[in-house]
Parts: sequence; C-alpha cells; structure tokens
Amino acid sequence: MIKVGIIGSTGYAGQQLVWLLQNHPSIEIVFLCSHSYENTLYKDIYKNFNGFIDDLCINIHEAEYKLNCINMLFLALPHGKSFNITKKALEKGVKVIDLGADFRINSENIYEQWYKVKHTSPELLKESVYGLTELNRNHIKKASLIANPGCYPTASILALAPLLKLNLVDKSSIIIDAKSGISGAGRNASIGNIFAECNESIKAYSVGEHRHTPEIEQELGLICNDNITLTFTPHLVPMNRGILSVCYSKLICKKSQEEIYKIYKDFYKNEFFIKITDTMPETRWVKGSNLCHIGIRLDERTGRVIIASCIDNLIKGAAGQAVQNMNLMFNLDEKTGLDFPAMMP
Amino acid sequence: MIKVGIIGSTGYAGQQLVWLLQNHPSIEIVFLCSHSYENTLYKDIYKNFNGFIDDLCINIHEAEYKLNCINMLFLALPHGKSFNITKKALEKGVKVIDLGADFRINSENIYEQWYKVKHTSPELLKESVYGLTELNRNHIKKASLIANPGCYPTASILALAPLLKLNLVDKSSIIIDAKSGISGAGRNASIGNIFAECNESIKAYSVGEHRHTPEIEQELGLICNDNITLTFTPHLVPMNRGILSVCYSKLICKKSQEEIYKIYKDFYKNEFFIKITDTMPETRWVKGSNLCHIGIRLDERTGRVIIASCIDNLIKGAAGQAVQNMNLMFNLDEKTGLDFPAMMP
Amino acid sequence: MIKVGIIGSTGYAGQQLVWLLQNHPSIEIVFLCSHSYENTLYKDIYKNFNGFIDDLCINIHEAEYKLNCINMLFLALPHGKSFNITKKALEKGVKVIDLGADFRINSENIYEQWYKVKHTSPELLKESVYGLTELNRNHIKKASLIANPGCYPTASILALAPLLKLNLVDKSSIIIDAKSGISGAGRNASIGNIFAECNESIKAYSVGEHRHTPEIEQELGLICNDNITLTFTPHLVPMNRGILSVCYSKLICKKSQEEIYKIYKDFYKNEFFIKITDTMPETRWVKGSNLCHIGIRLDERTGRVIIASCIDNLIKGAAGQAVQNMNLMFNLDEKTGLDFPAMMP
Amino acid sequence: MIKVGIIGSTGYAGQQLVWLLQNHPSIEIVFLCSHSYENTLYKDIYKNFNGFIDDLCINIHEAEYKLNCINMLFLALPHGKSFNITKKALEKGVKVIDLGADFRINSENIYEQWYKVKHTSPELLKESVYGLTELNRNHIKKASLIANPGCYPTASILALAPLLKLNLVDKSSIIIDAKSGISGAGRNASIGNIFAECNESIKAYSVGEHRHTPEIEQELGLICNDNITLTFTPHLVPMNRGILSVCYSKLICKKSQEEIYKIYKDFYKNEFFIKITDTMPETRWVKGSNLCHIGIRLDERTGRVIIASCIDNLIKGAAGQAVQNMNLMFNLDEKTGLDFPAMMP
Repeated sequence: MIKVGIIGSTGYAGQQLVWLLQNHPSIEIVFLCSHSYENTLYKDIYKNFNGFIDDLCINIHEAEYKLNCINMLFLALPHGKSFNITKKALEKGVKVIDLGADFRINSENIYEQWYKVKHTSPELLKESVYGLTELNRNHIKKASLIANPGCYPTASILALAPLLKLNLVDKSSIIIDAKSGISGAGRNASIGNIFAECNESIKAYSVGEHRHTPEIEQELGLICNDNITLTFTPHLVPMNRGILSVCYSKLICKKSQEEIYKIYKDFYKNEFFIKITDTMPETRWVKGSNLCHIGIRLDERTGRVIIASCIDNLIKGAAGQAVQNMNLMFNLDEKTGLDFPAMMP
Repeated sequence: MIKVGIIGSTGYAGQQLVWLLQNHPSIEIVFLCSHSYENTLYKDIYKNFNGFIDDLCINIHEAEYKLNCINMLFLALPHGKSFNITKKALEKGVKVIDLGADFRINSENIYEQWYKVKHTSPELLKESVYGLTELNRNHIKKASLIANPGCYPTASILALAPLLKLNLVDKSSIIIDAKSGISGAGRNASIGNIFAECNESIKAYSVGEHRHTPEIEQELGLICNDNITLTFTPHLVPMNRGILSVCYSKLICKKSQEEIYKIYKDFYKNEFFIKITDTMPETRWVKGSNLCHIGIRLDERTGRVIIASCIDNLIKGAAGQAVQNMNLMFNLDEKTGLDFPAMMP
Repeated sequence: MIKVGIIGSTGYAGQQLVWLLQNHPSIEIVFLCSHSYENTLYKDIYKNFNGFIDDLCINIHEAEYKLNCINMLFLALPHGKSFNITKKALEKGVKVIDLGADFRINSENIYEQWYKVKHTSPELLKESVYGLTELNRNHIKKASLIANPGCYPTASILALAPLLKLNLVDKSSIIIDAKSGISGAGRNASIGNIFAECNESIKAYSVGEHRHTPEIEQELGLICNDNITLTFTPHLVPMNRGILSVCYSKLICKKSQEEIYKIYKDFYKNEFFIKITDTMPETRWVKGSNLCHIGIRLDERTGRVIIASCIDNLIKGAAGQAVQNMNLMFNLDEKTGLDFPAMMP
Repeated sequence: MIKVGIIGSTGYAGQQLVWLLQNHPSIEIVFLCSHSYENTLYKDIYKNFNGFIDDLCINIHEAEYKLNCINMLFLALPHGKSFNITKKALEKGVKVIDLGADFRINSENIYEQWYKVKHTSPELLKESVYGLTELNRNHIKKASLIANPGCYPTASILALAPLLKLNLVDKSSIIIDAKSGISGAGRNASIGNIFAECNESIKAYSVGEHRHTPEIEQELGLICNDNITLTFTPHLVPMNRGILSVCYSKLICKKSQEEIYKIYKDFYKNEFFIKITDTMPETRWVKGSNLCHIGIRLDERTGRVIIASCIDNLIKGAAGQAVQNMNLMFNLDEKTGLDFPAMMP
C-alpha cells in the first residue's frame, strides 16, 4: 500500500483527489490537511464521504510531523504556498505531486513575472517533472517531484501536441479559446462566484493575461523545440465541471482532414485516456472521468485546423492526472483507480 | 462471472446500469438490446463508453435468442413491455430484474387501473419480489424475478418505513412532496423536455395521479399491516439527477426529535447505503452514488414529523438498486460495484 | 412625478425595484443608497444599467438628509435595520414601503421570538399595513407605512386565502411545501451560495423554523378570524428566480375540483395579476413578471385539496408588489409599470 | 397604430417578437400565424400570455387573406419558407421584416450553396436591406423588405465593424469563436435538445460550415470594401439565452488598447443600444434587453486584438432588432418599446 498525505484537501481539486484515492486499490490515506477546516471532520465538509471517511482535517504542522509516515504527498494549494513543504517532504524521501503552479514554470523569472510572488525554491525546478502523463511518461516514472499540469494546459497541450511535434502549423498562428465549468474558479466565497451571478451567463476573463499562458507556451515550445507565443482566452460557463479547449492554427502544409485525423490517431494510439473522435467532442462525455476527447476540423476555406479537446477539469485536469502520475511513480498500471467512463447524464 | 443481458439499454436507467455493470468485477455483459438503436454501436449513442464498450445494440429477437447465454436479465422498458420476455427468460432459468413497473403492483386490478394496460402475466405476480433491498433482503436472495422499485417509491418508502413499522404516526396523515431531476422524465424528445422549457423553472406534475402512488401505498401498507392512502406530489427540478422526497405525517405518540433520530439510526444501523444525517439532506451529496441520506425534523408546533430523503434517481432509484439486488441473488457482497461515494461538485 | 429614494438598493430585491422604477412612467428616482457600495456608480455594480442610470450610491446619512426631497421611501434591508429610518421618514411626511420584515408581524413578541432582535418601534406596528395588495387594497390606499410581504407568504397566502375565507378546509391540516430560486438566498458571498455548491442539487432548509411562518399564519388567521398553526417547508432550487408554493389541506365539505376552481375564479375575478390556471402552474410562466398563477387539484382519494401557486420571488414576491402598493398609495392605476407578461424562455 | 401580422409566431424568436410588440405603444397585433399550432390559443402554448393575448393561431392561408388588414408583416420561419409570402405581402404594399435567412445573402449562388435550397425570389434580393440597424440605418428607413440579421452575425459584425472600417487589422486573420444559449437551437423536440443532454455540457458545432459564416463575411466585406474569408466556430452553452462572440484579429498598425477603446467609443458614440465596456462583457448584463455590450483587449505579446460582444440572441439577435428596424421604417423613435435594461439576475 502506498501511504499518502494530502495538503489542501478541502478545495475542489483536493476533494476530487480524496475521492479517487479513496476508491484506489493500492492506497492508504494517512492524513488530510486543510488550512480552512483544521480539526473538522472531513465528512462534515463534504457530506458525500459520510460512511467512507472518518478523518479529521489536520493542520500543516501536524502534516509536516507526519511526513515520516507517508510515501507520497499531494499538494493542492494556491500558488506560492508549496515551496517549503515540498522541500521538507523531498528531504525525507517522500515523493511529491504538486497540483498547484509552483513548479510548473521552468524559469524562475517567468514564474515571478506571471504569478507576482517570489520563487523561494528555484533549485527544485531542475528536479521537478512536468506531469502531462502522455507526453512525459518516462521522466515521470523516475521523478520525485511532479508539477501536475493546470487544467487548461492539459486540454490545450494534448490538443496541439501532434501538430507541433510534426511541424504542421505556423507557430505564430495559435489561438486557444477555452471554456471551463465554474468549479475551475475554486471554492471561494465571493460575489462573482455565487449562483445567481454565474448562472445563465458566460464571460471571458483574464484575456491575454491568464497564468496558464506561459505554461502552455513552455510545453508546446519544448515539443517543437522553438519559442511559442500564443493567444489564450479562458471563459467561465454555467456548469459545474468540464473544459472545452478550442485551438486554432494555420496549416503550413497540404493535409486533408482525414490525414490530420490519422496523424492524431497514430500519435495517441497507445493512450487509453485519449480518444480521437469523429464528431466534435462535448464535455459531458468525459465529465467525471480521466478521459480526454479530441476532435478535428479542417477549415479548408481559411487553411486553419481547429482542434477541440474536452476533459474534466478536476480529473484529467487535476486530481485524475495526479493519480495517473502517482501510478507511474510507483510502478502501478497507469489506469489503476481511473479506469471508468464518464457517468451520464 | 455472471453473464448478463440488458434490454432497454439506451434509456437513462439502462445506460446507468451499463455503467455500473461495466465497472463491476464479477460481470460479463453478453448483450445490449435497444428498440430505438438496433444495430448501432453503443458507444456512438453514449460516447462516454468510447474505449470501454464496442458492442452493437441488438434487437429483441436476437436478445431472446441469446437468453441461453446469460444468467441474469435486466429489463428497463416502458410499462406493459416486460411481460413476454420475462416469462421466456424465467422458463430458461434466467433470473430477471425488471426496472420497469410491470411486476411491482401485487394486484392485477390496481395495476390495470393506474397503468391503463392489461396485465398479461398475472401469474408471475406471486413469484415476483419487490426489490427494495433494505426492507426485503431475505426474499430477494431467493428470488428469480425482482420488481425493482420506482425512484420516488425508493426514496419515500425508505423515509417512512421506520415511522410505520413502529406505528408512530397517523396513517391517514401522510403527504409526500417529492422533487426529481429531469432525467426522471426519461430520454424522450418532446417539447416539454427540451432545455429551454425546463431550465429556470419548477413544476408539480401528475398531482394526485402519479403511478408511483399505489406502489408506495402497497409497500407502506405491508410494513404496517394496514391500508395506506396518501397524497403524493412529484415535481421536476432543473437538474440532471437526484430525488428529494419530503414526507409529512402526524405523530400519534410523544417523541422528541432526538428520539425519532435514534429510532432511525437503529432501524438502519446495519445498512451501508442508508445514512441518517444530522442536517437535512441535499441531493448533491448522493448524486452519482447508491447512497440514501435521510434527515429528520420534528415540527413541535404542529406535531408533524418531517422526513426528507435523498437518492440519485438513476442509481439507488433504478440501476444501482438493481445491481444491489443482483449481488444478493448471486451471493455476492451487496456492495460489490457500488461502494463509492457521490462525486462532488 | 413621485420622487423616490431607495435604501438597500444593491441587494437583489433593491435592484429589481430600481429596474421597475426606472421603467415606471410616473417616477423620479432621487437617490440610491447602499451600505456595501457607498460612493460606487450603480451601473458599475449592476452593469445592466449602463446607459440607464448614472447615480452614485449614497450612504444612509446622506439618504436621511435627502428625505426632504422625496415623497416615497423604499427600504430593502435585513430585518432589524428599518426601525429608525422609517420613523424619520414618516415624521417628515414621506410614505414608506418596507420590503423587509420589520413591520410585518403585528405582535412585537412574536417578531422578537422569531427574529431574535428587539423591536424598537412597536408603536408603528398599529400604523403599518400588510401590503398583500389583492387582499388589503383599501387599507393600502390610505396607508403611510406598508409592510411589504415576504416572497413565500405572498405565494402561499394568495394560494390559501379563498379556502380559508370560505371555511372550506380543516385549519389544522395546512402544510406548505415551497420551492424558491436561489436569488431568494440573497446576494451574499458564502460557500453555501456559490455556483458549484447550489447547482445540480435541491435541499429543504429551516424546516419548521423559517421566519416566514408566523407571517403566513398571522395573515391566514386574519382571513378566517381564527388561529392558524401550520407546517412550512422552504427549499432552494437551482434556478435564479421563481417560487412554487404547494399548499396541502383537508377539505371539510363536499366540493368537486370544478367547484373549487370556480370559487377561486370568482374570488380573484377582478385581479389582473392573479390567474387561475387549468393546468398546474410552472414558475417560468411568471418569471420576470408581477403575475401569480394558481392551479388546483383535488385529491379525491384522500380528501385533500392541493393548491400550487407560482410567482417571481423578486417581483410579485418583493419589488413588483411594492410598486403595485405604491401605485395605490398615489392613486395611480395599480398596473402602472407592471403591465407586462413573463419573458420566455 | 401600426397593424402587424406575425408568421412563425410560436418559435422562440416569434414569441419574443410577440412579447415586444405586445408591450409596444404604437402597435396593434392583427394576427398570429403558426404552422404547428393552427387553431390553438396562443396563451395555451405560451402561458405567460394568459391575461394578455386571447388570439387563436391562424394558418398561412388565413394569414395571406389578412394581408389587406396590416401594414407590417414579420416572418420568423425556417430558411426557404419566406419567398412566397414575402412577394405577396410586398405586392399588397405591406412592409416585410424577415427574421429568417432568405434575403440576407445578396448572392443567390452563395445562398444556395450554404442553405441547400433553391432561391425562388432572387429578384427581391436587390430590394431587400440587411437590417443591422446601427450600420445600415438610412437604408432601413426607406426599405420595404428587411432581411433581419442572424444572431451570431449581429454580435460578430458589431464587434468587428470599427476594426474593418478603419482598416486596422489583417483581413485574413479573423477568427470568431461564438457561444450561444440553447434557445438558439430553436424550439425543436430532438434528443440533442433535451435538458439532460444539454445541461452540464458545452460543445462546438457546425465548425467551419455554419450558415451564418457567409452572412458575416458579406457584411464585413461591404464595410471594408474587400473580400473577407474568416473562421467561425459556434458553441452551445447550457443557458437559455445570450450570445458571447469573441473575435480575434491581428493588428496591422501600432495602436494601444486605449486607442482602440477610443475608436470604438467614437464609432458607436450615438448608438443607444451599443455600450463599449471597460471590463469584458458578460451575457447576463444584456439578457432580456436589446443592448449590445462590447469589450476590448489588446494582446500585446501577439499583436492580436480581441473584441468580445454580448447580446441577447432573441432580442438584439432577432426580435428586438426587428422592432428597432420597424420603428425606423415607420418614423418612430428607434428605441420605442425597447428602452429597458436587462433584468438581473
């Protein structure tokens, strides 16, 4: 049994992780840590766990103290909060998967520029591995510290990777127009987040300045060994879960839609969680699962290829991918605990 | 491995059943039958199953032909459609769980009165066992034919059973005001069912004449060994899943809220899927699970006790309870394939 | 032109009032007062008013200072906050409509018991008129202080008034099961209020102890000249607006459904805003309007009559009825500024 | 009084038109025509009109017969269905506003290519005026036949017009990623349209082949006097109403965000219904109104300008703009009957 601790267990990503680990056959949850709910029964916060989990949430000091009892630490914290605990855990030989942003950006400078906080553990950036499982599997297997990807980057990078790997598109032509369910805004009590302010409305936000932008650019750049600068526009949609990322780029070669479709099929042919779909994907078909559905349309009139990908923002976009990575790090079948389809409707 | 066939596999209850069985460790799905989608790939109808199920939907004739290859037949059909196939399956020694209404009402007359169709297999009514697992476990274990309860009856009977078993309330005082998500209306293309006609609205329907009324009355009557006539009002609420059943009745004894709470705790003390909650239940805490949450309030000013129960209409209210019953019929742990909490949010 | 001031203008009821008054032909809005948004442009809080309202929100001291400039003051404040300003306004000859609860309960004791605050203006209780327009029109016309009804009481009293006026039902048998959209919970940033915690779920709350209970009981008691004690259960439904109030009671006379229907038709025959409908009402048909739709079903099996009424909680249940009352107080046609149907879908 | 008839009055656009005309001070509705609901009371289909409209729906033959009694005919029909009745109405001197697509495309060939039906009244194409009010006001005033714009084109053309008029962007760089509420899919009973299939999901559809594409290209081309070929991707979002159109293009000049903002402010400075907003727009602020909110962001890193516009698809995107055009055609104040803000929440 892998013994795990979770810090930041009461946010939506943390809770999803608890859900997945609680159903995982090779896991023992040693502690649940929460800043906001110290000393509260977890099942009193998330009543779905009534009958399943009887733990009290502990605080960060207790969590540090218990690092000796675990093999695997998950962090699901706001940016800037993972530096210290990660260092301590690694020093004790505990593997770490950080669902937050603190180790995703390879460049300390770029991190500080976009996140507006000082990076206090830049030495760990070399060690950390970007945990987009399908693209980085071999490094993940050997890693001690995983920077688990953001939700938008997961959907967007998976959508664009084949085009960039095979050098099919103009690298300066990329636009990502992404739409997320409202759990993506986190479990924060703010006026903008309340039901009657979100329901029956859609909006774009952080246009041209969302923090997932440099993360997407970095990883796409690594794929094609070039610098990528792109436009990224996220939106909030009145639904609980799901991301649809629609990616536009200009073909620089002569390819039919069928040829591109075949390229994608080949690129992901061994990937259980990635499905290339004939029809354009809808978030409902992946909601509650670790799957990613990708659809392809060639707009022949304009020479643009349009790739749409769907994930569940809390699963493949956060907790599910973290479990997928953990499975790899502990030599388990990558699908363990994740091998179920979306539940409809 | 239990070999199962599912007839009516493309309605919402049928699809939920496929989902559960597909994740069940002791099951092999032998066929999926669908009247509407004969010869279509199941994963083309429900694209969540892309990568999980490659079966074509077969028609009823092929299904009959394959009865020899299965141990267990699930039916999820409109009322009046299960008579023939049930008879044929039972004759071949196949156990049957009918998620529809055809074998729920013990009296042929009452069935015909409420359902307006002729009951053509009245001889099976003696054989059939009402599959409300928690209240009927011993009969279910030995049964060949299960009449799986309706969604509203499951929530309502579980809510009221302790009060009636212990004779705590005036039997003529029962009112059930129940609210369902819109999947409860089925996967039917009708104007009343389309998004913009359901969203941002709530309504009561079939007031005083819903077909689940005699089913609830029959089972509550059996519990207290008396005739029960009650008022039942169902509603449609703009959400995909979930039932909240709020049950009103008048106490005929002196009990405090704490005492009633304790009675419920005792009554269901060995039941994994039933939780008596301190706070009033919300459907989100059971959505996507086989759980039933029950909350209790005594209105001392009026002497009424108000029991609210929540289930997922497609799981504990349909496919989940069917699997729970199948587990019992095949001597499996009752929780097999159902042992997971609701997924939030 | 009636010159009005609004205190509490940035809550949902206040904003709805601004909307209605802004479209009202005989109104000049003199000031908008807001505790939370002092000195902010109203159109920066509610961007729908961009191009329509250029006022800054003022604070309560400025509002008091401007009492001299208005004829009519609307208050949309939390309970316990309306006492002082009401007194000051009345002293200056300004008519007051309080959308809050402070003057609804005739008995100081009952108010304090349910609202847990001291009533500091009990002398005004004799003066104040309960503003359920259809039932109290003549008193409203002559009043200086209107206690505008709560949303649930409006729907519930209108539903039950004919039965009690004509003494058709057992007064001890009344149960009200009411369902509200989430704007009814107010514009408060709390975890329980955020989208992903409300969406796809329904719950009952404040069961047996909601503060609208004594208000409903008081007014129904006045209608039948007797004491009424009833059970009232409110719910939150995942939609922005609307209330459906389903009212159960036991007939004590022999009446057919048609006869009861006719009684209701007669009772409300001169009421433009009340429609007795053949089918059971749905909140969408009144959403965004000042209408109230009432449907009737007799459950002959149990002798219960079930009355369902629908209103828009923010209009007929708050701001619309306030405008209706203002129209009466200023001898305008009662329908002025309110004479439009619900907008679908 | 303008005497109007409406053909196609029971679809969502038709119903919205009835709502607006019913509240319009200078209108008398002479007939409501409906193919699907001939001889049915309009208020039995749309129960919001109970107490407001007592008309029966008539059929097309009766409608033709009554052309003599009207000045103004509105058509809200599927494409290919407006040719004959338009011709007949014009012959009788009745002005026509067609909310459908039949007269929007100037080229018969392009129409037939995208709509796959024969255009049987090509001679009317010269006469018809494209009714995007803000851009075509002078022609509209004198027109007898208005081709009322599609919902996506209205939002998208208003967003892009200033950029193209002033030649600020690379004309080959335009991508429109638009999102619509589900009323945009029409009032059709189909599986894809039902609540549980749309709710909690988002999808792109008709990617690269939506029929609004040539309409947008034509009008933008006329604005800049050049050929425009662009990429247009529509989406369905789980809400009743609203369109958000996010338009991407590449600047070909040096302009700051503030400069572009000022250009937009100037361009629309006399337009009551168009608001240039500091923050990015949200559909809720225009829902239920004839307003269009436009927000601007310059992505300096990529040189792209991102214009987001919001309208209510059924009002400014259909019926509201039709009324705005009618007002012009009859020398009324353009805002008559449309001069109200969005109702929140």
